[in-house]
Amino acid sequence: MALLVQKYGGTSVGSVDRIKRVAAKVAAAKRAGNDLVVVVSAMAGETNRLLALAHEFSEMPDDREKDVLLASGEQVSVALLSLALKELGQPARSYLGHQVRIETDSAYGRAHILSIDSTKIVRALEAGEVVVVAGFQGVDEDDNITTLGRGGSDTSAVALAAFLNATACEIYTDVEGVFTTDPGICPDARKLQRISYEEMIELASTGARVLEIRSVEFAKKFSVPVHVRSTFSDVEGTWLVDEEESMTDVLVSGVTCDRNEAKITLVRVPDRPGLAAQIFSPIADSHIVVDMIIQNASEDGTTDLTFTVPKADHKKARAIVESALPALHAKGIRVDTDIAKVSVVGVGMRTHAGVAAQMFQVLGKEGINIEMISTSEIKISVVIDAKYAELAVRVLHEAFIGKQGKV
Amino acid sequence: MALLVQKYGGTSVGSVDRIKRVAAKVAAAKRAGNDLVVVVSAMAGETNRLLALAHEFSEMPDDREKDVLLASGEQVSVALLSLALKELGQPARSYLGHQVRIETDSAYGRAHILSIDSTKIVRALEAGEVVVVAGFQGVDEDDNITTLGRGGSDTSAVALAAFLNATACEIYTDVEGVFTTDPGICPDARKLQRISYEEMIELASTGARVLEIRSVEFAKKFSVPVHVRSTFSDVEGTWLVDEEESMTDVLVSGVTCDRNEAKITLVRVPDRPGLAAQIFSPIADSHIVVDMIIQNASEDGTTDLTFTVPKADHKKARAIVESALPALHAKGIRVDTDIAKVSVVGVGMRTHAGVAAQMFQVLGKEGINIEMISTSEIKISVVIDAKYAELAVRVLHEAFIGKQGKV
Repeated sequence: MALLVQKYGGTSVGSVDRIKRVAAKVAAAKRAGNDLVVVVSAMAGETNRLLALAHEFSEMPDDREKDVLLASGEQVSVALLSLALKELGQPARSYLGHQVRIETDSAYGRAHILSIDSTKIVRALEAGEVVVVAGFQGVDEDDNITTLGRGGSDTSAVALAAFLNATACEIYTDVEGVFTTDPGICPDARKLQRISYEEMIELASTGARVLEIRSVEFAKKFSVPVHVRSTFSDVEGTWLVDEEESMTDVLVSGVTCDRNEAKITLVRVPDRPGLAAQIFSPIADSHIVVDMIIQNASEDGTTDLTFTVPKADHKKARAIVESALPALHAKGIRVDTDIAKVSVVGVGMRTHAGVAAQMFQVLGKEGINIEMISTSEIKISVVIDAKYAELAVRVLHEAFIGKQGKV
Repeated sequence: MALLVQKYGGTSVGSVDRIKRVAAKVAAAKRAGNDLVVVVSAMAGETNRLLALAHEFSEMPDDREKDVLLASGEQVSVALLSLALKELGQPARSYLGHQVRIETDSAYGRAHILSIDSTKIVRALEAGEVVVVAGFQGVDEDDNITTLGRGGSDTSAVALAAFLNATACEIYTDVEGVFTTDPGICPDARKLQRISYEEMIELASTGARVLEIRSVEFAKKFSVPVHVRSTFSDVEGTWLVDEEESMTDVLVSGVTCDRNEAKITLVRVPDRPGLAAQIFSPIADSHIVVDMIIQNASEDGTTDLTFTVPKADHKKARAIVESALPALHAKGIRVDTDIAKVSVVGVGMRTHAGVAAQMFQVLGKEGINIEMISTSEIKISVVIDAKYAELAVRVLHEAFIGKQGKV
């Protein structure tokens, strides 16, 4: 008998009718002979409603109490889905983070799962019940309620699959799987049948929104087979699996585009040891995540230092850097929010040279200037003017993946 | 240093502004030198909203899942009140039922509190924090979430005061205390300064809505001084205390009126052993609470059996009794929903005879017919035609309490 962990996001459980539809889907999978653990998020809009409520009390709501507040959203959905299942004659039982002891560290709002106690879940499954678990939440050592951050329910589902040694973890979403690129930008985009965890991590970190990156890291660590598929159809989606030899035949599996970053340049800073720390320590202290960093040493002992931050944080980051300017003796600061980061990802790059060169050629041919470059073993990202973003995605997709490329 | 447990109901925390006002009140009490544990209910309307949601899935929602759903309401209020306190510079910390282990039995929807682990609360108080605890909820031995039933937050507060050995338990509500009768019916109604637990139990069970009866029983058992007072003023309210000698000087402390019952009469049932069990067992099995029962034996071996049930349950009760009619060989059934139960309550009755007689005279003088009578050691209740309810309350209040009566 297969044990499936299924995860349904906020849109899938966004209304009474949708919850009923999910219940029917779950009950059918149970009737087909599977044991089922179902992870749900808060109903669409609920987390934002609760956040707005918190902000009526404080501009910077206390992290611990914010987590107590937000965790109530999933509490509502697990109860409702269990009621819907029972109404269909399918025995079901809801569990919250503290009840199956999804133990996390104490980093409120972005906690990491450390362990899960499977005793109650196994007992309920043996009794023929569908187990419905609240995503996104856990408790720390001292029973304080924690949440895992946006998209945390993906991580809850994968972690449950890992600790329960499930046959598969099915992530139900509003798209049919992982695509070679955004079909909204490039009509040739194709659904991938299989993709390696590592590629998925790079795709997620460079702009693909289908899966929370941390959940993929978790899946990779415990080799959990993850199946990303649509809530609204029965079509096979995309499987996330360990890297297979045949995968390296393909140079590029996906092309992504991220328009949510801003670029900050410190112009002509006198270059000396400790410079980077002086800039980036206060930024890190403000919990701003810096993505790319590039520093070019110039002849005269000064350097231009450029980095990208989430667009939402660029004002805060600018203020931090500006207050440090006098001490740095920099000539000035430039901020550019009209940028896009376009990336190509593929495990084939590990064994095949020349992908970067080909990428630069393709972009150059279209007159697209490259402002920053960053590479990893299986990824090349470039920052370009935002107005060329779609064009860049299309020409790169055509060059590396094409209409009939091996996928 | 005094340790106060304060309880604020749904109306008191019914909006962002009201929560802020409660926070200001709590912070002031803390500044005045008290340690504070604050129990809150769900925001007004929230419990009903969640119940309605449950009913979109099932006519009879599963009790366990309903409790999981409803408990989320208090979770929201404790987080928001803690945020509001912190915003005022007052350190605060919220706790849910499972975190301070408010352990109950497993009777979902109407659980009884068995124990509370005060460790975390004491630690937080020692650290100077205001402790905000979710009312209405607990967990059973197996960590299932339970709720205590309507008005359960009163019980949570009194139980916390008992287990923490608090100086007093302050119940904040929208009236200024316990009155000799409903001021809306009788302009002479006066606020009581003190009342014994037993009288309060009788008042609550005969129609006074100010306190949940179970909370008073809890207070009596552990001799918790309870102070019922207004959220919206600083006026002293009413203290619930152990019976004091001087209290018995007063014959009647309060007059109550309950219009939420219906009367069911079985006409001319052949009287024989086991009759009552045959009728009331199936009613009890349907969780219908029978209040008064009266049976008059007649000459011919048949009897008229009359009892009252909550008005909301009278159709269900009628159906149960009707299906038993053939086996009972009764002549028929009569249901009357136009009734009122009017009661006088006072510990003075224990030592003074004649209260009942005087009550019947007062009502008789106004031409009010008495349909049923029920007495306890400190209470006399009569069922009368609903249209005389206000009149009966006024004449009884005047006769026993009057304008200047000792209170």
